[in-house]
Amino acid sequence: MSYVPVIRHLYLEGRELAILDQRALPSEERIMRLKNAEQVYGAIKSLAVRGAPAIGIAAAYGIYVHLANKDLFTIDEALEAVDLLKSARPTAYNLFYTLARQEKIIRSGKSPGLILDMLFTEAKRIHDEDLEQSARMAGFGAELIRDGDGIISHCNAGGLATGGNGTSVALIYEAHRAGKRIKVYVDETRPLLQGSRLTAWELEKAGVPYEIITDSMAGTVMQSGKANIVLVGADRIALNGDFANKIGTYSLAVLAKYHGIPFYTVAPVSTFDPDTPDGKSIPIEQRDPIEVLEFAGIRTAPGGAKAYNPAFDVTPSELVSGIVCDRGLISCPYDENIKIVVDREQK
Amino acid sequence: MSYVPVIRHLYLEGRELAILDQRALPSEERIMRLKNAEQVYGAIKSLAVRGAPAIGIAAAYGIYVHLANKDLFTIDEALEAVDLLKSARPTAYNLFYTLARQEKIIRSGKSPGLILDMLFTEAKRIHDEDLEQSARMAGFGAELIRDGDGIISHCNAGGLATGGNGTSVALIYEAHRAGKRIKVYVDETRPLLQGSRLTAWELEKAGVPYEIITDSMAGTVMQSGKANIVLVGADRIALNGDFANKIGTYSLAVLAKYHGIPFYTVAPVSTFDPDTPDGKSIPIEQRDPIEVLEFAGIRTAPGGAKAYNPAFDVTPSELVSGIVCDRGLISCPYDENIKIVVDREQK
Repeated sequence: MSYVPVIRHLYLEGRELAILDQRALPSEERIMRLKNAEQVYGAIKSLAVRGAPAIGIAAAYGIYVHLANKDLFTIDEALEAVDLLKSARPTAYNLFYTLARQEKIIRSGKSPGLILDMLFTEAKRIHDEDLEQSARMAGFGAELIRDGDGIISHCNAGGLATGGNGTSVALIYEAHRAGKRIKVYVDETRPLLQGSRLTAWELEKAGVPYEIITDSMAGTVMQSGKANIVLVGADRIALNGDFANKIGTYSLAVLAKYHGIPFYTVAPVSTFDPDTPDGKSIPIEQRDPIEVLEFAGIRTAPGGAKAYNPAFDVTPSELVSGIVCDRGLISCPYDENIKIVVDREQK
Repeated sequence: MSYVPVIRHLYLEGRELAILDQRALPSEERIMRLKNAEQVYGAIKSLAVRGAPAIGIAAAYGIYVHLANKDLFTIDEALEAVDLLKSARPTAYNLFYTLARQEKIIRSGKSPGLILDMLFTEAKRIHDEDLEQSARMAGFGAELIRDGDGIISHCNAGGLATGGNGTSVALIYEAHRAGKRIKVYVDETRPLLQGSRLTAWELEKAGVPYEIITDSMAGTVMQSGKANIVLVGADRIALNGDFANKIGTYSLAVLAKYHGIPFYTVAPVSTFDPDTPDGKSIPIEQRDPIEVLEFAGIRTAPGGAKAYNPAFDVTPSELVSGIVCDRGLISCPYDENIKIVVDREQK
């Protein structure tokens, strides 16, 4: 199962959380060392670490390092740190999922020393589960990719977005390893270019053939027959199969439907939110318009210009060919099939 | 009819063609003065002047200034300059249309002195026709915009793309002047950001409410009901109504169809190519991948990365609600109705 080029970008070094600063990629591989919840909050909010599974893991480690670097801590202090980290970003469910697991430990009534040990163990377990989930998703999903396929990817759903192996990109790695001749059309993913900066960087390292396209080229790439499958990640999946993912995902889903091209989202169970009945209920993070109006400090719009900058959009389940999760391929009827997965998870 | 804020960006000053360098906008309003066909070729190829009608006008002036700055010229030299300018960009038909008009004069058998006078007069006429055509398109098309509409625009089809008044943006100016409360969602238009750099600059000057979006946001803007009409320009329209326009136009057309939103293209008759039967026959310019891989000299992708960079895509006529031209609104059946317009033009 260890088929993919694991990207070690998120790991503990003693009582510090080391992360590869994704804002500096691809030009620089810079490691940040985080010692407390405020620093982890800042790293998540500023997208130094991003990707739904990765921010869940970073938050779980974040609680541990925050408390491990104190001589003493109270339960209230620990819960405050949990609340701070929960507020870093609103859309990805994995953040709330992993923090709920850590919060349960904090509220267990155990001694601070034991709680600290348990938080460490749980964070490690969350990270290990993520690696295992990537392998399982790749195992279930790589069959969807055929020899000769052109694959459209969006944003970064690779090793950098997870504990190291990826969600939708894990399927691509596995198909490539299996010898399938594939080509990935990497949506650059405006405004922050996670596709050209991060996914291309990963595919380049892994030797997978790819070409970067602007987001606006996906239509013509499908029209010409160059691409015949779309694979994306997810930040939160509702019980009816609607899901939030990086802005632009919804347009890809509509384009895929129009061209009769399969469109799959790939995400571990930690992305399914049992409290979100449908896409309308998912909170969408609005980010600073400056991300659209400037590039690297250079203004690209007139002085008075305003911009709209939702970080995510919601794709309704009727546009989704299937959801690849670590329990298998979920297909219609989504409400029934997701319930089975979520109920099993909650046991 | 003079309802719009004419942008004076393309004009003769003696024997020089003055153009506002669109590459420097919005940060700088820099005038270039061009004296020969090589300089005009360079300005068109490098997008210092761009937009299908504008490059047609620039080329018509370009032949004039090229010959006017010589003491003597031969017919062969004049035809060489025509050929050079024709080779500047392959997709927009207006370039070939206006150069064919100038070439006819060069081949008229008149004396060089008379030819020069006639080239001057014809270039001025082409420019005047363009201003008149903008006004007529605005008159025919502004009715398509209703009070309260949210309009998606793509690339720049404003004054800068024409002799000064615009194609699809001329409709927006007219609707705004008529007091309709509208809002324009300006697709930034990667890779060269003609939307955020140029269209936003024009709308800002004209006081039309707008908001810049990344190209990938058009889907969510339609899904939420914020936008209910799409207006774009065209670089070449085939006899069956298929048309080429800035990359990303095709995706917008598919999205509009899916959401049941009207999608119009706006272009003068000089954009209709009587020798192009359908979209498959339109040559699509491939530009340097560096436009996708760098911004302002800063690399945004890994060193070895490749990019795909078609400057245009083709939208099939079945996705088009109508074509607004200076003869009126053309609707289905496109082949019959376009033939009437083109036949009349060729008389």
